[in-house]
Amino acid sequence: MKSLEQYTRFIEEKIAGINLEEEPRKLYDPLRYFLSLGGKRMRPILTLISGELFQISNEESLSAALTIELFHNFSLIHDDIMDEAPVRRGKPTVHIKWNSSVAILSGDVLFVEGYQQLAKYTDKRLPILLKRFNETAIEVCQGQQLDMDFESRDDVTEEAYIEMIRLKTSVLLGCALEFGAILGNQSEETRNHLYHFGVSLGIAFQIQDDILDLYGDPELFGKQVGGDILSNKKTLLFLKAKAISEASKDARFGDLLQMAPTDSKIASAKKLFEEIDAKNASLETMNGYYSEAINSLDQLESKGLELGSLRELANFLITRKL
Amino acid sequence: MKSLEQYTRFIEEKIAGINLEEEPRKLYDPLRYFLSLGGKRMRPILTLISGELFQISNEESLSAALTIELFHNFSLIHDDIMDEAPVRRGKPTVHIKWNSSVAILSGDVLFVEGYQQLAKYTDKRLPILLKRFNETAIEVCQGQQLDMDFESRDDVTEEAYIEMIRLKTSVLLGCALEFGAILGNQSEETRNHLYHFGVSLGIAFQIQDDILDLYGDPELFGKQVGGDILSNKKTLLFLKAKAISEASKDARFGDLLQMAPTDSKIASAKKLFEEIDAKNASLETMNGYYSEAINSLDQLESKGLELGSLRELANFLITRKL
Repeated sequence: MKSLEQYTRFIEEKIAGINLEEEPRKLYDPLRYFLSLGGKRMRPILTLISGELFQISNEESLSAALTIELFHNFSLIHDDIMDEAPVRRGKPTVHIKWNSSVAILSGDVLFVEGYQQLAKYTDKRLPILLKRFNETAIEVCQGQQLDMDFESRDDVTEEAYIEMIRLKTSVLLGCALEFGAILGNQSEETRNHLYHFGVSLGIAFQIQDDILDLYGDPELFGKQVGGDILSNKKTLLFLKAKAISEASKDARFGDLLQMAPTDSKIASAKKLFEEIDAKNASLETMNGYYSEAINSLDQLESKGLELGSLRELANFLITRKL
Repeated sequence: MKSLEQYTRFIEEKIAGINLEEEPRKLYDPLRYFLSLGGKRMRPILTLISGELFQISNEESLSAALTIELFHNFSLIHDDIMDEAPVRRGKPTVHIKWNSSVAILSGDVLFVEGYQQLAKYTDKRLPILLKRFNETAIEVCQGQQLDMDFESRDDVTEEAYIEMIRLKTSVLLGCALEFGAILGNQSEETRNHLYHFGVSLGIAFQIQDDILDLYGDPELFGKQVGGDILSNKKTLLFLKAKAISEASKDARFGDLLQMAPTDSKIASAKKLFEEIDAKNASLETMNGYYSEAINSLDQLESKGLELGSLRELANFLITRKL
């Protein structure tokens, strides 16, 4: 089994080798720029590892892996415009470095580049790959819309939040894994187990991200802690705290929302959310989804598959320092 | 043979019948709105008529026709943001009626809806359809980028302009026609003839549009004449006039550019462009592309195809009142 670094390097090399045209420069320079910003390349790696389960070589699953990664980058470029995000991976976003028109159009082209990778499979697997990819792409857009809708809504439930992160971030992980099984001509049952492993793992990972935003070690987490609290963002932690406070008529949560966005607001949130058990409740929910993910793997293992690499990856993703 | 109105009605019905989801409303309401704005539906009709040449029923070619039309609408939604266009078919554009984020994201979803139509072909035709559609979609984006680039460039040649309109508007007509031949399992030669018929016709149609913008009867043309002149837009007419004036050191073209955007500027342009033969030169170029289109049809006819409907359509498109 390769190390994660080896997989990442493999994907990086292949992304750098994608033959993008030169002209028009305002269409392709932004893509070269954005694709070179790096990242963990976790999604395409999932496709490679999933393919290996069914004796599909990395070279053969590469195009499907790239479809997922190019789509992911397309969605980041467009999301950054909508979210007015100035920075991505420490560098200016495309709409800042160029402008919104450039970001819209080069994003559109990147989306098609993803479909071009998929079109390299010209056999009977193509209709299944295309159908599942289309369904996933639409769900990711739905998730982004829900995420934007939630900003101005005060009635967001925990259930609605989980559905939003399922759509916005998790189904793409599921699709990346399912792609390996489709390439390996596997049954729908096997495909489903891999898909649900990815979706559950993705939800657990996102909840962990919410918790780490407040409770993570700033050095290990890689970004400043407390950002979500400063902007009153409706994360799972926030929604748990809100629900618990409302049930017990505890006014402190309402007071917290009114606080100015300073370090003292972050400290108050940390303390309050531990006291009223919102942190533990979030960890519990996270562990529930992680268990579901592992359960999907157990079902696959009972079919005789060798799942060491996926177990290792799941473990790696979910044991970031709290 | 059906009348154009019958084809349009058929497409309208099928578009209205596309099963879009209800939620999130900000994602799907804009699509229902935009798709209901109508239009000639010329592109999907081309696919239907092309399919008929090879005994493909309209029902069978419908999904391919819808792929083209949904893509066209997606590109209009995104172009309208980039061009800051407030009105489309007499109604507010999506980014005006909602906002830019809504227009970006609902456009993205519409793009995928197009691919979902294509994914309905699950046999050996799918890889070819998908490959040609991807290539065309990328070219349309390239054309839009060139069009935006040209706004700030003073060195646009006639050749570069033709290449821009080929990419931005004509290759999609070619693809729409080629789809019918792909569905009919035709040879690459037949596919190419249909494709080139569409591309040449598209270029001729766009040049005609440029000429009509200045010389058209406002009532028949359906929009105010002279808009291109008021904004000094680099149409073929403009580029011809510029080249002729530069060759003969005629200062009147430069004077025209400096004029304030009033009716008198339009009148001066009409007069000048006739005098220096820029209008005739443009008509000649248009007729050259129209002849190329007809030449492609002649080649197809020599293979025994019955092309009455395509000849009628070509004639209909190119004989708008000058």
